[in-house]
Amino acid sequence: MFERRIDEGLWVKLTVPQFAPELFVVVSENREFLSRWLLSMEGIDSLEDMQQQIKGELQKFSYGQGLHETIFYRDRIIGSLGYHYIDSLQNIGHVRYWLAEAFTGKGIMTRCLRDLIGIGFDYFALNKVQAEAAPENHTSRALLERSGFTEEGTIRSVEKVMGQYLDHTVYGLLHSEL
Amino acid sequence: MFERRIDEGLWVKLTVPQFAPELFVVVSENREFLSRWLLSMEGIDSLEDMQQQIKGELQKFSYGQGLHETIFYRDRIIGSLGYHYIDSLQNIGHVRYWLAEAFTGKGIMTRCLRDLIGIGFDYFALNKVQAEAAPENHTSRALLERSGFTEEGTIRSVEKVMGQYLDHTVYGLLHSEL
Amino acid sequence: MFERRIDEGLWVKLTVPQFAPELFVVVSENREFLSRWLLSMEGIDSLEDMQQQIKGELQKFSYGQGLHETIFYRDRIIGSLGYHYIDSLQNIGHVRYWLAEAFTGKGIMTRCLRDLIGIGFDYFALNKVQAEAAPENHTSRALLERSGFTEEGTIRSVEKVMGQYLDHTVYGLLHSEL
Amino acid sequence: MFERRIDEGLWVKLTVPQFAPELFVVVSENREFLSRWLLSMEGIDSLEDMQQQIKGELQKFSYGQGLHETIFYRDRIIGSLGYHYIDSLQNIGHVRYWLAEAFTGKGIMTRCLRDLIGIGFDYFALNKVQAEAAPENHTSRALLERSGFTEEGTIRSVEKVMGQYLDHTVYGLLHSEL
Amino acid sequence: MFERRIDEGLWVKLTVPQFAPELFVVVSENREFLSRWLLSMEGIDSLEDMQQQIKGELQKFSYGQGLHETIFYRDRIIGSLGYHYIDSLQNIGHVRYWLAEAFTGKGIMTRCLRDLIGIGFDYFALNKVQAEAAPENHTSRALLERSGFTEEGTIRSVEKVMGQYLDHTVYGLLHSEL
Amino acid sequence: MFERRIDEGLWVKLTVPQFAPELFVVVSENREFLSRWLLSMEGIDSLEDMQQQIKGELQKFSYGQGLHETIFYRDRIIGSLGYHYIDSLQNIGHVRYWLAEAFTGKGIMTRCLRDLIGIGFDYFALNKVQAEAAPENHTSRALLERSGFTEEGTIRSVEKVMGQYLDHTVYGLLHSEL
Repeated sequence: MFERRIDEGLWVKLTVPQFAPELFVVVSENREFLSRWLLSMEGIDSLEDMQQQIKGELQKFSYGQGLHETIFYRDRIIGSLGYHYIDSLQNIGHVRYWLAEAFTGKGIMTRCLRDLIGIGFDYFALNKVQAEAAPENHTSRALLERSGFTEEGTIRSVEKVMGQYLDHTVYGLLHSEL
Repeated sequence: MFERRIDEGLWVKLTVPQFAPELFVVVSENREFLSRWLLSMEGIDSLEDMQQQIKGELQKFSYGQGLHETIFYRDRIIGSLGYHYIDSLQNIGHVRYWLAEAFTGKGIMTRCLRDLIGIGFDYFALNKVQAEAAPENHTSRALLERSGFTEEGTIRSVEKVMGQYLDHTVYGLLHSEL
Repeated sequence: MFERRIDEGLWVKLTVPQFAPELFVVVSENREFLSRWLLSMEGIDSLEDMQQQIKGELQKFSYGQGLHETIFYRDRIIGSLGYHYIDSLQNIGHVRYWLAEAFTGKGIMTRCLRDLIGIGFDYFALNKVQAEAAPENHTSRALLERSGFTEEGTIRSVEKVMGQYLDHTVYGLLHSEL
Repeated sequence: MFERRIDEGLWVKLTVPQFAPELFVVVSENREFLSRWLLSMEGIDSLEDMQQQIKGELQKFSYGQGLHETIFYRDRIIGSLGYHYIDSLQNIGHVRYWLAEAFTGKGIMTRCLRDLIGIGFDYFALNKVQAEAAPENHTSRALLERSGFTEEGTIRSVEKVMGQYLDHTVYGLLHSEL
Repeated sequence: MFERRIDEGLWVKLTVPQFAPELFVVVSENREFLSRWLLSMEGIDSLEDMQQQIKGELQKFSYGQGLHETIFYRDRIIGSLGYHYIDSLQNIGHVRYWLAEAFTGKGIMTRCLRDLIGIGFDYFALNKVQAEAAPENHTSRALLERSGFTEEGTIRSVEKVMGQYLDHTVYGLLHSEL
Repeated sequence: MFERRIDEGLWVKLTVPQFAPELFVVVSENREFLSRWLLSMEGIDSLEDMQQQIKGELQKFSYGQGLHETIFYRDRIIGSLGYHYIDSLQNIGHVRYWLAEAFTGKGIMTRCLRDLIGIGFDYFALNKVQAEAAPENHTSRALLERSGFTEEGTIRSVEKVMGQYLDHTVYGLLHSEL
């Protein structure tokens, strides 16, 4: 409905419930691939779950506590990114992103993330953009490093997914480092 | 932050709290002019009021109950329009709009309204777009008629503004009439 | 429990949950007839629904936002009327009413409505009493005209009932017209 | 607005906010006298307090948890009575009442209380009507005994009024005793 | 988790959800015996009920409105006691207690109750500790009398348990009587 | 009110509002010293703030989301510790602690923390106890290392205190490492 042009054919749009059917299809097709990224898409098992999640994201947006964008390439949904949490006391935006497998390796997320970081510093007056990656997710870690983030540590057993405790490698980009 | 291109130099953007300072200036400058339209801007007496109102509009948007757009001409705020209420039981979108005095008479609102009507029928699956105008507001009534709306009646004493009861002439555009 | 005498044998009483069983019977017996009036009694499919609805009406009454009366003729429930919504910002009371088929055509509703209008102007300090009728409901329209209401317009597709969009003819009676 | 006829010239009406101005005057005139009854009218120091209290009573009524009646003698407010709490788990109605000094000693409250007890057993399906009196309030205790209540005990220090702990003599009337 | 030493081998502990499994076993084993006390353990039919009840008691504790203790003898749960309601307006603490049958008659509750009364007057600044017993529960009445309580009356039909209305004999201990 | 014996003369007690006056005095006396620890005691500027904070901690406790203990040495409050947040999805308890300056360097916190860790693994079934220290707080870092924690990283600009962004060094102790 509302959008930002990133590049020729590449747009990010504010995620609205009307995207739910197509988003759910893309997520379902990439579920196994995405589970290798940090985002396991647990809890999104139906179109209704997807619609509920989008409503929740829009409510966070209305409170200035989050921002969820859907990535379109030539009118087709190929991924999403955003701030899943904006901590307005500490001025930190927590980034999360995923791309359908077929569209990785083309620099798409790098360009979308650069735009998102700009929104964070310009509109939300962030002091820091923070991201987490699974220690073994070299693609995601390379993306963050390429985007100027600094590795700050690996917090152990910080997330329980299907009975297993996972570690997170934390990356940060300060406003002063831009 | 997120936008729709209407025409060369003319954009509508989803209204976000970051627009509040500029919006408040434009509203304040046009307060007397706007009070002649139906929208009296009562209750928006400070920047804080403006920010609260925008947050409220975003929350309605997150529930699919409203949509508030800010109109930009060459990076400058010149008005706003939107659905101040979307009745998803009866599938009716209630339209409201205003333009800074200096920008009226150029067909700007006609083009923005056409886009908004499209969003209503496409994204919100409306059956009807409805608008109210003061009976003596010939500019607004002409705009609605030009846009394909039908006059349905004049409901008397329907709104109390500063101690006076005002009438509303009701206009409707059905999906089937498009 | 609490009542107003309208005429010999004719009383209106504040609707309380204890009326639910008898009201539900009368509504059920007249369901087909009532569906020809604007009030389709949708959503009142059990005694529990009826009790819930009455509780809701009493809560509106406690907030000064509504009033629901049950009509008794010789200790027997024969209909109801009231303000289904009192808009205390605009000082408008929105009237709704129905009568069991066997009791129509005797001037009963005319007398009950006159009393209700009096309550509206005296107790609730209304500026306007407003009512809606289906355009083809000549009985209801005649009642309103006989009671001094003015036809203000026909708002199209304003209510969706069982998948169909219905029009409402709007009638108003201003305090100054009494 | 809605009423019950008790006797020639004597009515009880469901207490509505519109009674607040006259009720507040009567309470204010009888404040010293009433403080000798159990009801000290603490917390009702302005018309606004009175309106708030009435709204609260109506809300309890809408939940079936209370009932507040105003007593009228020849169109003039002279007191009130009711169930300040209806415990629908244990089926007990807790009675409270007061009368302006000039109207005591005429059997008025006896007749109003008899009607209220009837409402309790008929409409609210109570098993017990309960009342409390200050041990030294002989008028109130005589009224309860005359009305068929049994003294059940004196609970000490059960209510703190202006820094002092007061005892309550408890009276009960069971449905089976009627 | 947190405890008070009453005597050699005898402890009372703040009841926490972690006690639920053992408490539920003890309650279940003593259900028939306890139903002879006032506490019928109705509504605690599963481990989940027990956990919910404990959470509710802890919430009351966090608001200063209650206190629930579990009695341990040599690391084994044998009963509970506490203030099921603290009325901080009237400064009254309402006591409730039970003991597994095998541990009665040893003065255990007398000692635990003495400690609880002390907490009431010291920490919660109570003016009165109040307790209720079934008129025919001589054990409980003897315990209260031994502990310095005064019999204040027998309130009839005050509690409905499995369709039957029970009387409560009320006992009170004032701070000034200590 | 409820306590745990740590050692001769050393107790930890569940923090209750009744501790507020003494706690507030100790915090006020040590404010400058404590601001050197991570805990700046911001927002606790009055006895009322202290009481509110304690109520909030008890509510978290009642939901199994936190635990706040006050440390007593010979009946005198000398500090506090606890889980300021228990994440029951990831099974992580977040530890926080402080001691009045005069009581540091005696191993008191080491012993209290060992007990708290035990509660975390035993009662709350934690998988990990986590703590944060300012990078330059060598006392706190030494305490954590001595207690078996592993340094996991230093997250930059994670907390804004009086306009300045502070870093946190994160320490973790897994259940499997005990």
